[in-house]
Amino acid sequence: MTETNKAVVILSGGLDSTTCMAVARDAGYDVWPLTFFYGQKHSIELESAKRVAAHYGCQDRHFIANLNGIIRGSALTDADKEIPVNRLETEMSSEIPVTYVPARNIIFLSIALSYAESIDAQSIWIGVNALDYSGYPDCRPEFIESFQQVINKGTVAGAHGKGIQIEAPLQHLTKAEIVKLANRLQAPLLHTHSCYQGTDPACGVCDSCQLRIKGFQEAGVRDPIEYAIPINWDVV
Amino acid sequence: MTETNKAVVILSGGLDSTTCMAVARDAGYDVWPLTFFYGQKHSIELESAKRVAAHYGCQDRHFIANLNGIIRGSALTDADKEIPVNRLETEMSSEIPVTYVPARNIIFLSIALSYAESIDAQSIWIGVNALDYSGYPDCRPEFIESFQQVINKGTVAGAHGKGIQIEAPLQHLTKAEIVKLANRLQAPLLHTHSCYQGTDPACGVCDSCQLRIKGFQEAGVRDPIEYAIPINWDVV
Repeated sequence: MTETNKAVVILSGGLDSTTCMAVARDAGYDVWPLTFFYGQKHSIELESAKRVAAHYGCQDRHFIANLNGIIRGSALTDADKEIPVNRLETEMSSEIPVTYVPARNIIFLSIALSYAESIDAQSIWIGVNALDYSGYPDCRPEFIESFQQVINKGTVAGAHGKGIQIEAPLQHLTKAEIVKLANRLQAPLLHTHSCYQGTDPACGVCDSCQLRIKGFQEAGVRDPIEYAIPINWDVV
Repeated sequence: MTETNKAVVILSGGLDSTTCMAVARDAGYDVWPLTFFYGQKHSIELESAKRVAAHYGCQDRHFIANLNGIIRGSALTDADKEIPVNRLETEMSSEIPVTYVPARNIIFLSIALSYAESIDAQSIWIGVNALDYSGYPDCRPEFIESFQQVINKGTVAGAHGKGIQIEAPLQHLTKAEIVKLANRLQAPLLHTHSCYQGTDPACGVCDSCQLRIKGFQEAGVRDPIEYAIPINWDVV
C-alpha cells in the first residue's frame, strides 16, 4: 500500500463543512467529498453540497450516501417534531436540542471510515466546532478522541499501526473565527446552506441561522446568502 | 424517560447472531432485531434473519436497514473479489481475510446505537466471538470496549451518565461452546445460514462453513442445515 494524500471530507453543504473542505484543500489534500442524505425534511442541503463539490472540481467523485430511513428521532428528520425558532442563545446551550439526531456523527464517521479504508485515504475531515458542543454530545473533542480509538482498534490499518486520522480543524474555533477562516481561504460561502428549516432564502430565525448570522456579524463579514427577514449588517 | 428492558439485537441470520438473540431472550429482554442489507452477493442471509425473527415472534418490529452501496471493498460485497475456499485453519488466522468488510461492525454498532436511542433501548447485542478475532479487527474485545467509550461520550444518554450498553455474550466462547449454548437455549439453528457463498444447501468449503461444521463436530451436535458436500458427522 502506497501512502496517498487522499482525504475524505464529510460535506453537508453548510458553513462549517465547507470551511473544513477549504482547509483540507489548502493543506494540499486530494479531497473526496462524502455527503449524507438521511431523510432530512429538505434536500436543499444536498444541493448546496453538490455546488460546493463542483466549486472544488470534485463533483465526479462526490459520494452521496443515502441513509434515508436509517436515522430517526430528530426534529430534522421527523415530521411530527417542530424546529424551534427565535430562541435566545442561553436556551440553545442549556439542553440537548430537539434537532439532535441520535448518533448522527457516529454514523457519519463510521461510514466515512469504511469509505476511507476502501479508497485508501489516510484521513477523515469533519467540521465539528466549538459552538456545536453546547448541546450535541457527538461534537465534543472527547467524542472525537474516543472515535479515533475505535479506528485504531477496529480497522485493518489501525491494527497495522497506521490508522486513519480524524481531522477536526474547526474544533476549537468560534463561529466568527470560522467565518474569517472561510473568507481568507475563499471558500464558496454563497453556495452554503445552514438553515434548519430548509427554506431558500434562509429563514433567519432558527438556531442555525441565528448562530450563522451572529458569526458573520462578529467576524465583520457580510453573509453572501439571502435571508427571508431583514438582517442588520450595519454591525459589520 | 422510563427504564425499559428493550434490547436491539444485531441479527445477521447466522449461527452467532441467532445465538446472541437467544441469550438476550433468555435473559428476559424485549428484543428488537436489526438486520443490515449491504450489498452482499446473496440475500439468503436476509431470509434467514427474517425466519429467526419470526421464530421469536418479533417479525413486526424487525428493522431491516438498507446499506446497499454504502459499504464497499470486500469479497462479500465486490463482484471482482473471490471468496476463498478449502483453506487450512492456519491460513484463515494468519492474515486479515479478503472477506473483511471495511469498518462493518463499526457501522453496524453506530446504526444500532442510533436506533436504540430512538426507541429508548438500554442495550445493543452483537454476536462477535472469540474465533472471529483471528482476522477481523472489529471483532476484538478492545474494539468493543473502545466503541463503548464512543457511546458514553457521544450520545445524549451517555452524556447523562446512563449510556446504552453493548452486550457481546459470545465474545469469549469458541464455536463449539456457541453451538452448545444455542442448543441448550433451543435457538432455531435450522433457520440460520453461515455460508459465505450464499448457496442453499451451504457449500461446506468456505471459511465460514468450515468453522461452523467444526464447531458442531466439537460440540457433539449434528448441524440441522443441509450441506452440498458430505459431512462426516460420525465424529459427533
